[in-house]
Amino acid sequence: MDVRYINPFVKSIANTFQTMCGLSINVEKPQLKSGDDPSSDVSGVIGFSGDAAGSVALLFNYDVASKIASAFAGTEINEDHDDFSDAIGELANMVAGGAKAQFEGLNISISLPNVIRGKNHNLSGSKSAPRLIIPCNTDMGTFYMEIGMVLTKSVAASQTAAVGASQ
Amino acid sequence: MDVRYINPFVKSIANTFQTMCGLSINVEKPQLKSGDDPSSDVSGVIGFSGDAAGSVALLFNYDVASKIASAFAGTEINEDHDDFSDAIGELANMVAGGAKAQFEGLNISISLPNVIRGKNHNLSGSKSAPRLIIPCNTDMGTFYMEIGMVLTKSVAASQTAAVGASQ
Repeated sequence: MDVRYINPFVKSIANTFQTMCGLSINVEKPQLKSGDDPSSDVSGVIGFSGDAAGSVALLFNYDVASKIASAFAGTEINEDHDDFSDAIGELANMVAGGAKAQFEGLNISISLPNVIRGKNHNLSGSKSAPRLIIPCNTDMGTFYMEIGMVLTKSVAASQTAAVGASQ
Repeated sequence: MDVRYINPFVKSIANTFQTMCGLSINVEKPQLKSGDDPSSDVSGVIGFSGDAAGSVALLFNYDVASKIASAFAGTEINEDHDDFSDAIGELANMVAGGAKAQFEGLNISISLPNVIRGKNHNLSGSKSAPRLIIPCNTDMGTFYMEIGMVLTKSVAASQTAAVGASQ
């Protein structure tokens, strides 16, 4: 993935969590996902499509998710609370929406959130679409952002043409 | 959800599984999802966006998923096989793509598949976007299709205006 498409997610997650949860995030270097790890207990996933197709997911264990959902809602929320999944889905939605607004020259739209709950589940995509894992360290614990993104063929071709023309 | 937007999914899942797995599906009546059920062991999820935002998910237990992935691949594939997640993701992708092609008057695009694995996980969306569960009975066992879909405001408004004008 081109760094131009990673930075919007990194900026958006920092901004979303600072604004909505009062939480500073120390974002580690993105790693290419290999195998199934990290596993998670609750994941908020948003798909996107248009000039690029893919998804962004936030992966939490229950303990960290409960603390963050509580900070977001301003009241104690654990994984059994009615509003728990909505809070995690809304955070994923805000991260995706914030990133989308920063993409230059890419017209993409985002889907509705899916929230997955289940101890130690794993996400995967297709082998042809590599994913990045970005560890996010906070005072409430570490969680992960997982991004997979593939430019549509026409956009990828026009970018290659533009690079060729400028050489 | 308007029946006009459910039928494309029903037709697409029947066509996809017949063509790709040689499997007939007896589709039960759609039910409004309440609570977390059904849980699943492996889920293939595709988001979509554009004139409508949402997602379609196929929910399997491991036993049914292994049988169906094996029929799809033409060789024995269980949940530990390297190609297992790809097979489930590709089936979800084909169901979404087939439905998309049948939407009349709606321009939507689809994301890349996410495949979730983990014994007894649950999917949920936001409370403001109800979901339908469609049980799919086959000779290999029962699985479920879960659909959530919301028209974008401009499309919903134009449809309301069209109904008003025709009255």
